[in-house]
Amino acid sequence: MPARVDRDERRRDVAEAVWRVLATGGFPALSIRAVAAEMGATTGLVTHWFGSRDDLVDHALGLLHERTDASLGEHADLRTRLLAVLPTTTEGAELSRIWVGFWGLALADPALGAREAARYERWRSWLRPHVGSEDAIDLLTSSVHGLVVQALFDPGRFPPARLEQLLDALLATLASTVAAGDITHA
Amino acid sequence: MPARVDRDERRRDVAEAVWRVLATGGFPALSIRAVAAEMGATTGLVTHWFGSRDDLVDHALGLLHERTDASLGEHADLRTRLLAVLPTTTEGAELSRIWVGFWGLALADPALGAREAARYERWRSWLRPHVGSEDAIDLLTSSVHGLVVQALFDPGRFPPARLEQLLDALLATLASTVAAGDITHA
Repeated sequence: MPARVDRDERRRDVAEAVWRVLATGGFPALSIRAVAAEMGATTGLVTHWFGSRDDLVDHALGLLHERTDASLGEHADLRTRLLAVLPTTTEGAELSRIWVGFWGLALADPALGAREAARYERWRSWLRPHVGSEDAIDLLTSSVHGLVVQALFDPGRFPPARLEQLLDALLATLASTVAAGDITHA
Repeated sequence: MPARVDRDERRRDVAEAVWRVLATGGFPALSIRAVAAEMGATTGLVTHWFGSRDDLVDHALGLLHERTDASLGEHADLRTRLLAVLPTTTEGAELSRIWVGFWGLALADPALGAREAARYERWRSWLRPHVGSEDAIDLLTSSVHGLVVQALFDPGRFPPARLEQLLDALLATLASTVAAGDITHA
């Protein structure tokens, strides 16, 4: 039993170090060496957990999915869920920064790119009951993600209240035209 | 004179190697070592041109700006200019992929982040005579950039004709509501 506890604790330590590297420098900064430095450990020890950089990226992506799912909530209505995607809190901005950094990596790696494409499809499946057309789904997704990027670069222009106001303007716009009135607040 | 010609030629060779590294792996892959490998040269030779990775990133960003400005055109009307941002061609998709990869780097580096924020402000200055409100400017920018990201991950869902159709739907939507009818095609 003690060995098992140690292993679980060590696993948690490693995961926390991976997350701190992501929070500071994002996926571009993620390496066996950076995680070792963050833990004050040898690269050998980190290699014991992650045989390769690909394993490390896979683990980091798992952490990012977990934390993102937790922050979005399962059963929220459309507006609440979209608002949760926007960087209105420090934690939300951290998650978004890491996602944007992942895009750069995923666009240069077909396997990671396919995973991101599949994640977009799952997101659209969630939107479908709420939004009346594929065009509206794609424009809503685009607007929210593009707004995330702009807000990360210029938080002074996009404080939380303005992000919320822009989201409402967007929902009103799509409800009246592109979505042909089919956006519903569940 | 011959020495000068050699130097200009060598500078062009280096710039082309930098671009090929960007086109393949984006900013995450950019390093003195990668550029040297691309040229079949020593890292010492590349260090002769770029003293540090920061110099190299700066040079790469300059190339990206040049090629992007050339692809967008100076005097195009609103619709043409927005359409040029969307990845409807192989060259456009390459530029967009590199930009998205740059975001990840810039979000972890305050100086690069400030440059990207300033670039967004120049983009908004260009939009202002065409778009009637700051909200519409921000939503239009968001939608177009978010659409770029989605299309890069899933070109099958977003062929050129559909991107064009989504842009027209977006312009129609913003013209009738958020922008209070002030979107003009110059």
